Amino acid sequence: MPEPPRSRWRGEFQRWFDWVLEVGGFYDYGRYPVKGVGVWLPYGFRLRRLVTSLIRDVLDSAGHEEVLLPIFIPETLLRKESEHIKGFESEVFWVTRAGVNELDVRLALRPTSETAISYMESFWIKSYKQLPKKYYQIVSMFRYETKATRPMIRLREVTTFKEAHTVHESFEDADATVAEAIELYKKIFDSLGIPYLVSRRPEWDKFAGAVYTVAFDTIMPDGRTLQIGTVHHLGQNFTIPFEVRIQRRDETIDYAWQTSYGISDRIIAATIALHGDDRGACLPPIVAPVQVVIVPIPSGGTIPDELKKTAEKLEEELKAAGLRVHTDWRLDVRPGRKYYEWEARGVPVRVELGAREAREGVLTVARRDKLEKLRIPLDTAVDEIKKLLDDIMNTLRQRAWSWLRSMTHRSTSVEEARSIVSKRMGVVEVPWCGREECGHRLEELLDAKILGTPLDEDASWVDGEKCMACGAKAVTVLRAAKTY
Amino acid sequence: MPEPPRSRWRGEFQRWFDWVLEVGGFYDYGRYPVKGVGVWLPYGFRLRRLVTSLIRDVLDSAGHEEVLLPIFIPETLLRKESEHIKGFESEVFWVTRAGVNELDVRLALRPTSETAISYMESFWIKSYKQLPKKYYQIVSMFRYETKATRPMIRLREVTTFKEAHTVHESFEDADATVAEAIELYKKIFDSLGIPYLVSRRPEWDKFAGAVYTVAFDTIMPDGRTLQIGTVHHLGQNFTIPFEVRIQRRDETIDYAWQTSYGISDRIIAATIALHGDDRGACLPPIVAPVQVVIVPIPSGGTIPDELKKTAEKLEEELKAAGLRVHTDWRLDVRPGRKYYEWEARGVPVRVELGAREAREGVLTVARRDKLEKLRIPLDTAVDEIKKLLDDIMNTLRQRAWSWLRSMTHRSTSVEEARSIVSKRMGVVEVPWCGREECGHRLEELLDAKILGTPLDEDASWVDGEKCMACGAKAVTVLRAAKTY
Repeated sequence: MPEPPRSRWRGEFQRWFDWVLEVGGFYDYGRYPVKGVGVWLPYGFRLRRLVTSLIRDVLDSAGHEEVLLPIFIPETLLRKESEHIKGFESEVFWVTRAGVNELDVRLALRPTSETAISYMESFWIKSYKQLPKKYYQIVSMFRYETKATRPMIRLREVTTFKEAHTVHESFEDADATVAEAIELYKKIFDSLGIPYLVSRRPEWDKFAGAVYTVAFDTIMPDGRTLQIGTVHHLGQNFTIPFEVRIQRRDETIDYAWQTSYGISDRIIAATIALHGDDRGACLPPIVAPVQVVIVPIPSGGTIPDELKKTAEKLEEELKAAGLRVHTDWRLDVRPGRKYYEWEARGVPVRVELGAREAREGVLTVARRDKLEKLRIPLDTAVDEIKKLLDDIMNTLRQRAWSWLRSMTHRSTSVEEARSIVSKRMGVVEVPWCGREECGHRLEELLDAKILGTPLDEDASWVDGEKCMACGAKAVTVLRAAKTY
Repeated sequence: MPEPPRSRWRGEFQRWFDWVLEVGGFYDYGRYPVKGVGVWLPYGFRLRRLVTSLIRDVLDSAGHEEVLLPIFIPETLLRKESEHIKGFESEVFWVTRAGVNELDVRLALRPTSETAISYMESFWIKSYKQLPKKYYQIVSMFRYETKATRPMIRLREVTTFKEAHTVHESFEDADATVAEAIELYKKIFDSLGIPYLVSRRPEWDKFAGAVYTVAFDTIMPDGRTLQIGTVHHLGQNFTIPFEVRIQRRDETIDYAWQTSYGISDRIIAATIALHGDDRGACLPPIVAPVQVVIVPIPSGGTIPDELKKTAEKLEEELKAAGLRVHTDWRLDVRPGRKYYEWEARGVPVRVELGAREAREGVLTVARRDKLEKLRIPLDTAVDEIKKLLDDIMNTLRQRAWSWLRSMTHRSTSVEEARSIVSKRMGVVEVPWCGREECGHRLEELLDAKILGTPLDEDASWVDGEKCMACGAKAVTVLRAAKTY
């Protein structure tokens, strides 16, 4: 097993993340002979299953229906909405040949599915009575990224793209669905303890084809922000070219209104990166493939019968309580080595069970988040461990939020703001007049990317402040950061 | 809703199947502007979820680990095993462009993943101590089919391709895994009540790159066979070119041995097709997205309070018993119409609940398989309905097996055999000397495709018979049929 880098912070984060993906058995990256694609390994795949199942539960219970659309989008379809194709043209993978034939119409591998689903919705949806409609799918999505690719973060095949597509009767209904989607995404990220900033993206950085875009960003351990979710109001931008017409309540015919919202592999990258430490991952119990690992301590090269029975009984009881448990029976690996491995893989609770513990009826339990050991009575172990898992979840969440808050700064001075972004990293919030040219100017002045205007906090502190670019009256806050 | 075709049998099966996919809300086919691809609709997707989850349970509990490999296979990789590329070359989709660039190396969309995983296994696997290894993934797979495409049955994007890939220490271990895979597949098909013939495919029709191939075929309602699963012994055919080397017990280094086995969307096609009737689908309870539909019968345009309470309580109790239940509260659709819809969608049990039933405490229950109505007491309804679902499952399974048996014929006369295949359809079994040239000759004589030799039945009936092609002593049975 490779040695960990000295620290996951700052310049070392990339190395730390590559290391944790390997040592944790999550993801094999950089060996497959195609740039920007990776392999989900068995343990990583189990994490992915639990994350996607959490996403499905949230969406299903809010009335979304899962579907599966083709991967191929014919060029003719992709070109129907002109802003959309402009935004994606430079990063589309094209299938041009099949067998020995040249295809008449080139097929794009879906960079996103607004065009495909709008085409189908023109058949499916005829009346306001069918609305709202909320579809989603979890699929591979393709972008020919020309920037440096990174495992789970910037890929050419994004294997876990959850894209929701909704249809509505009016602009306002679509607006309300954007608000609902934001709440659902908060619920999903909160479940995983991932902290976020919610910003309305500037006009020049909205989704290609959207009326407006709201984005969730988190702050990675190196201080760069990572976009982890987006929600788009699509207006009638796709329903007009694709002729998704509905009969309205007043019996007139109009084009329908749409939204779309997406989450990708990055939610798993953030889950691993944000809660980890120098020993490896620390997975939130809600999605940890193994929540409790039991390590029976052999004596004299074997595991005594009594100990064996105690360990089996404990595993059984924990499983009966609905927990994901694994007992590490290996005899050719020393306990210390096992601790090291399971810590790297992020298992939240480890139970060390020796002959003495079995005899005395007291367990030694190590919590991964605080690297602390506790002793708990065997006969209340199930309840204590359940409580411990809850406590770990809360600790991870609070710690990650403290981190995000500590990395979000306000400034009214260009010099200070620029220095924050370049030295301390994280997000800087500055006063802004709201004009696009000042936004672009600030991008240069701060040498940072503009995330947009906050939707999750009061901007009244800029009252009386001046736009940092032009000196005119500030009307809102602009967030900027070094981004992934 | 379109009218059903007169019958699902024979010449009408194709029309019936298209109709049931549409009217049941399973799958949208033929409208998306790319040939050979379809859209899983919400109800169909729920069926697909339940089927894939059944497959996952069987594989997981037999020690398989789920992974996810890239969709892209570089041409260089695909060409490493020469038989393999020969077999697939004519049906590969090629990505040749990305953004505005021509790619240096063309990327195939996976037609199957032996090459991709063998490449990775050369990094992952070093010693016999790690073996056996059993991986699988459920992914989209791509074949540029030039024959007529058909929904779920012959697609260019097969969206539900479960491919397992295993690695072993010896030829014999791989052989034993083929046998295990056959048992696992039987378990999966048996769960769904899908009957099958297990045949060893002839040499000239084995998987491209296999030592030998075993296949599962079922017989569709029109009498054509449908290949629903295959299991391949791959020998060292991939481990040699991909250099998957292992240290053996005796410390020598050797190439590892492999198997692979696959199931596709066709398992869902067979589930829908085999149990259906002129009213639509009849889904096996184990995977029916709705196992019980409750239809409260309104009186005077509303549902009386007492009836409402009874229906809600029944739904709650059935759900508490772990059943998937839906209550159809719609007031703008008449009960008769509802029955028609839920029958088409294949819901196994329908509960009709009027004011009289609620008052008398007796339910009218319709079973979809036999189209019979029963009356059961409300207070034992949960138990009765659970028993009924079991009984429906058994009925479907037995009926489908009777069908398959009735469509499998033995013959020792060319004329008769040829007439069976062309008129009565189904499978014909004939005596064979085992030589390849006679196999090809029989294909012509019978105007049928050779499925291979039976692995699931005693071939001793051909003792003393003559090869139907050459007249020499028959040593085995050859199965032939019109196939999909």
